[in-house]
Amino acid sequence: MNIDMIRAAAKRLDGHARRTPILTSPFLDEIAGRRVFVKAECLQHTGSFKFRGGWSAVSALGENARKAGVIAFSSGNHAQGVALAARAHHAPAVIVMPADAPAIKIDNTRALGAEVVLYDRATEDRNEIGARLAKDRGLVLIKPFDEPLVIAGQGTCGLEIAADMTAQGVTDADVVVCCGGGGLTSGIALALAADAPGLRARPAEPEGFDDVTRSLVSGRIERNAKVAGSICDAIITPAPGTLTFPIMQDHCGPGIVVSEDECLRATGLAFERLKIVLEPGGAAALAAALFHPDEFSQDAVVAVATGGNVDPDIFSRALDTLS
Amino acid sequence: MNIDMIRAAAKRLDGHARRTPILTSPFLDEIAGRRVFVKAECLQHTGSFKFRGGWSAVSALGENARKAGVIAFSSGNHAQGVALAARAHHAPAVIVMPADAPAIKIDNTRALGAEVVLYDRATEDRNEIGARLAKDRGLVLIKPFDEPLVIAGQGTCGLEIAADMTAQGVTDADVVVCCGGGGLTSGIALALAADAPGLRARPAEPEGFDDVTRSLVSGRIERNAKVAGSICDAIITPAPGTLTFPIMQDHCGPGIVVSEDECLRATGLAFERLKIVLEPGGAAALAAALFHPDEFSQDAVVAVATGGNVDPDIFSRALDTLS
Repeated sequence: MNIDMIRAAAKRLDGHARRTPILTSPFLDEIAGRRVFVKAECLQHTGSFKFRGGWSAVSALGENARKAGVIAFSSGNHAQGVALAARAHHAPAVIVMPADAPAIKIDNTRALGAEVVLYDRATEDRNEIGARLAKDRGLVLIKPFDEPLVIAGQGTCGLEIAADMTAQGVTDADVVVCCGGGGLTSGIALALAADAPGLRARPAEPEGFDDVTRSLVSGRIERNAKVAGSICDAIITPAPGTLTFPIMQDHCGPGIVVSEDECLRATGLAFERLKIVLEPGGAAALAAALFHPDEFSQDAVVAVATGGNVDPDIFSRALDTLS
Repeated sequence: MNIDMIRAAAKRLDGHARRTPILTSPFLDEIAGRRVFVKAECLQHTGSFKFRGGWSAVSALGENARKAGVIAFSSGNHAQGVALAARAHHAPAVIVMPADAPAIKIDNTRALGAEVVLYDRATEDRNEIGARLAKDRGLVLIKPFDEPLVIAGQGTCGLEIAADMTAQGVTDADVVVCCGGGGLTSGIALALAADAPGLRARPAEPEGFDDVTRSLVSGRIERNAKVAGSICDAIITPAPGTLTFPIMQDHCGPGIVVSEDECLRATGLAFERLKIVLEPGGAAALAAALFHPDEFSQDAVVAVATGGNVDPDIFSRALDTLS
C-alpha cells in the first residue's frame, strides 16, 4: 500500500467522484476556539466517501471479473458506494447487509440495482457469508476497508484535503477522520504524509467503539466488546484492519473518543451552520473538533464529515439539540 | 446593467465567495423524468446566495463610504450576506428586518456584528425606514435586489452555472431560480445569455406570491395581494423590481408556480438525496423541476437551491413528508 496506488485511484476517479467542498462557518470557529474546516464528504455520490473506494475497486477489475460481478458486505454506505460504481460499470452487485441497518440504506442499495442479502449482526459473521457467496457465484469480494484498492480510493479524499488546505495556506493542522475499520483514515494518512506532511490524520470514534484509539495506544489490534447498538452505525466495526492498522500506526496521531450526544450536537450544528446533512457517525470528527478543544494544539483543524445517510427520526434528535 | 458588471463582480468575489457545487442524484432524475442538476447555493457563506450581492456591493464602496457604513433591509438572507461582507471590510452595518423573520436569521445577523432594527411587515414600509436611517446616519443603502451592484453579484452564480454545465456538456436546458424580487433571477439570466445562450433562466415562485410570473405574462409589474404569511418567507416580496423586471422580460422563460407543500417535499428530498439543507423558499426551483415535469421540454433541468436558513421546526415538517 503506497501513495502511487492512491494517485492511480485518483486518475480512475477523475470525472466520476465529486471533488467535495471544504466548508467553514465563523460560528463553528467560535465554538471550537480555532478555525474549523469541514471536508463535506456527505456530498459525495451516494452520500458518503465510500463511493470513492467502491469506484476505485470496481474500475480496477478486468473485463471478465467485471462481467461476473462483485459482492460487498457493509453497514450501508459501502454498499451504496459499491452498488452505484458497479451499475456505472455494468457489473452485477450483491450486497450483504446487517438486518438492523437503517431502512434508507437498504432501500437505496436495492434502488441502485444491487441484490441485497440480509444477515443478523449479533449472531452471524458477515465475512463468512460474503466469502461463501463469492465462491458460489464467482463474484469478486470488495471488502469495506481492509483492501488496497479501497484504501487507495478513500485516500483520494486526502489528496484533495492536502491540495485545498495548502492552497488556503493551512499547512500545520490535525485532520480528524470518522473512523470505523480505518480504510478512509489510513488512506488519508498516506495522502497527507506524501502531499502535506504538516497535516496529520487522527481517528475519531464513538464511546464504546474506540477500537482504533485503544489499538494505537497499546500497539496491537484491540477489539470492541460490542459490534452493534450505536447511532453511529456507519463507523462501527469489530477491530481495525490488518492492512489499515500498521498505516495508522505509522502516520496517525492519537485517536479522539466522542460521545453519541456530541455526535448529535455536531450533526445539529452542521445543519444550522453549514447546511449539510450528516449522520451521527459522519459527525464524529466534527464533534471532536468542536467539543474536544484540549486535544488539539494548532490554530486550525480539519474535520472530515464522512457521510449523511441518516433516517429522519435520528436527524430529528439532532435538531432537538439545537433548542 | 450588463454582463461586464457581472464579470467585474466575479473578480471582486474571487477567493471570498464560495464556488458552490452542482449536485445530482439518480433518485431525483427518476422523479423528474429528466436529469436534474442542483446548484447548491445554500452552501454559500451565510447559507444563501445573498452573500454574493452583499460582497459585490460592499467591496465596490470607496474608502470613506465604507468607513461610514451600510444599511440593508431584508427578510433575513440579504441581511446576513451584507452583515458578513461588511464585517470582512471593517464597515459598520445596520440591518432593518421584519419582526416575524425566522429567529435564526435575526440571531445570526446580530452575531455577525450588525445592528438589527426590527419593523412590522404588515403595517410599516421597510423602504421608508431604511431611507430615513440611511439619511440620519450617513449610511449607504444596499437594496436587496433592485440595485445594479447586487444584481451583478448574484449574476456571478450564473457565470458558474454557465461554465459548469457547459463543461458537463449540457448546453440546452432551463435554469430554474427561486425568485423574490428578481435580483438573482435577472443576474443569472444576463450571465446565461452571455456565456451559455442555450440555457434559459426561469423564475419559480410560491402560490399566492407569483408576482413575477404574472408580470411576465401581462408585460407590466404586478403586485402580490399579500406580503407575508408563507413558509417561503425568503422569496416573498411585494413586486418585481424596476431594474430586474425588464431584464427578466428580455431573457427569462415563463415563471413556474409551486405550492408550499411541494416546497416542503423538495426540501425533504434534498435532505434525503443530496444531503443539503434547504429552506422551503430555497427549494421552490427544485420543486418546480421535480413536480412540474410538463412545464419543461429539454432532457435536463438546472435548479438553483438558493438558501438553507431554516428553523428546525419548519425543517421537521419537510422531514415528515418523507414518511
